[in-house]
Amino acid sequence: MSGYNVAVVGATGAVGSRFIELLENEAAFPIKSVKLLASKRSAGKQIKFNDQMLTVEETTPESFAGVDLALFSAGGSVSAKFAPEAVKRGAVVVDNTSHFRMDPDVPLVVPEVNPQALKRHHGIIANPNCSTIQMVVALEPIRQKFGLEQVICSTYQAVSGAGQSAINELYKESQQIINNEPVSPQILPVKGDKKHYQIAFNTLAQIDVFENEDYTHEEWKMINETRKIMETDDLKVTATCVRIPVALAHSETVYFTTADKDVTPDDIRTVLQTAPGVVVEDDPKHQIYPQPVNAEGKKDTFVGRIRRDMDNKGAFHMYVVSDNLLKGAAWNSVQIAETLHKMDLIHPAN
Amino acid sequence: MSGYNVAVVGATGAVGSRFIELLENEAAFPIKSVKLLASKRSAGKQIKFNDQMLTVEETTPESFAGVDLALFSAGGSVSAKFAPEAVKRGAVVVDNTSHFRMDPDVPLVVPEVNPQALKRHHGIIANPNCSTIQMVVALEPIRQKFGLEQVICSTYQAVSGAGQSAINELYKESQQIINNEPVSPQILPVKGDKKHYQIAFNTLAQIDVFENEDYTHEEWKMINETRKIMETDDLKVTATCVRIPVALAHSETVYFTTADKDVTPDDIRTVLQTAPGVVVEDDPKHQIYPQPVNAEGKKDTFVGRIRRDMDNKGAFHMYVVSDNLLKGAAWNSVQIAETLHKMDLIHPAN
Repeated sequence: MSGYNVAVVGATGAVGSRFIELLENEAAFPIKSVKLLASKRSAGKQIKFNDQMLTVEETTPESFAGVDLALFSAGGSVSAKFAPEAVKRGAVVVDNTSHFRMDPDVPLVVPEVNPQALKRHHGIIANPNCSTIQMVVALEPIRQKFGLEQVICSTYQAVSGAGQSAINELYKESQQIINNEPVSPQILPVKGDKKHYQIAFNTLAQIDVFENEDYTHEEWKMINETRKIMETDDLKVTATCVRIPVALAHSETVYFTTADKDVTPDDIRTVLQTAPGVVVEDDPKHQIYPQPVNAEGKKDTFVGRIRRDMDNKGAFHMYVVSDNLLKGAAWNSVQIAETLHKMDLIHPAN
Repeated sequence: MSGYNVAVVGATGAVGSRFIELLENEAAFPIKSVKLLASKRSAGKQIKFNDQMLTVEETTPESFAGVDLALFSAGGSVSAKFAPEAVKRGAVVVDNTSHFRMDPDVPLVVPEVNPQALKRHHGIIANPNCSTIQMVVALEPIRQKFGLEQVICSTYQAVSGAGQSAINELYKESQQIINNEPVSPQILPVKGDKKHYQIAFNTLAQIDVFENEDYTHEEWKMINETRKIMETDDLKVTATCVRIPVALAHSETVYFTTADKDVTPDDIRTVLQTAPGVVVEDDPKHQIYPQPVNAEGKKDTFVGRIRRDMDNKGAFHMYVVSDNLLKGAAWNSVQIAETLHKMDLIHPAN
């Protein structure tokens, strides 16, 4: 039987479970075998894959012997340690963590935007940050057609970006507030940071840790990754990232200015209607605009509320919503693997 | 006993109950009597005011006989009908609805920003839209010191802006989602619009009805009211207004450009630290930034996440949070009444 030996690293996490579903049902490349890897703590768990039960194994360097394609989503330190081991054993790694993203030797890829970058891979391909992916999927067709000068983004991010434990925390706290009981936050905004705050019925203007210039790491990701993916060092990009009490799917207000100053909202709509991976949901008369609850479980990026800034020619608003665990993570990684397969850039070990 | 005869119209609503609390505890003007008015449906209800029980009466033109000051928050149509009746009977009206806001004969006032406009009143003073008030409280000190060219706002608005029934709907739907039960939205995004959508664990990029250029009425309010309050017709202002699953207090990302291009984030912080009605909560090292749960029940506007746009001199981000029923509604109205009193612009009928 021909096909790839695929390993999923972080198989028991929120993104890992999406990887497994997509490999079962969606992946447009041949699969010979699937190996589920996780931490020692999760080893031994049984997970159904098609009609077989697979046992989760602890990740070790030897886990990657014979593996052709490894999908990583188990945190930056796991990728740092094991991705080079997988590459050493002949695997191509698609890494969903931020660890290698800004490495000049590692392509950072959204298949609708820069598939050509895959040709330059040396074994590791990085999957971008969730909030960046959905924004560039919507912006790139506009940039190609009308040029792009500046982007200002405000995010409304789902807690699932911080993992399954953050989803559990959101629901637990919501129930406690409804019951008039005290809450005891332990995960959000950032598990490893000093203070933890209530997310239920609240907003937290901190995603990931604070870095220089008082931007968070998430905000720097949106700035730096957007420029790398779009291959435009001179694009002005800035962002404020905010966590809100939504479980799945990020929303974003994206304000942008085009180089062409005669563009109309209808021009933007027309370009997006045929853009890959984009679904335009923009019919104010019928109250149609993107919503997280409608984007949940879907692979597309939904765009609406397209309208011009009344004071500036060539300046526009749009509202961009997508499932952060699918297009923002697992689905984009599987698309990368599909594209690698189509371009014959994965070479089975046997 | 000297003092004003005060009427509260809409006494049983979410803002009305804040009016009553503020009149009991906070209002810095002498009160002779308080009359609670509402719709026929609510007439007869008993509400405690200090140590007396007051009976809610149905609003009629005659209700305003002998009233010196009337605080309205019972919907635009009630204000349209009864505010002129109150004025005819000698009362000064502070109206929390949008009905008179853009009337050139009606001052639209945030006491920290444009108290001088009160001198031009002809009986009715309009209280601005909640999301506008907190933004201008934070922007006006910056405008005065450094000049202001452009403002781009994205809102994260609490459901209480749509009344107590919307708060009830948020909690009810949240419980249903937690229980895996179906939801049946009936209030949000706009009670009187055709479709209703789930707000629990969701975002709704519609506040109020859609109007021209595909902006919502709420977005037009932010544009037009900001210019009227700040008395700057040439200020570029644009906004996207989004409802999120928070009960109380609006959050806003406010991106702004100053006329003075040498301003630093520290300059902005210094100006805001002494600005009336503003509390700076901005210490990223200690994870200090404004949060709705901390702003709830407080009268100030909280500002944090102040930082520069790395690509544009004189361009900044800030995050602005305030209790939409207090500074955004009842407290701003009571402040207007206090300022009218200080300026001797309310004339008791007897």
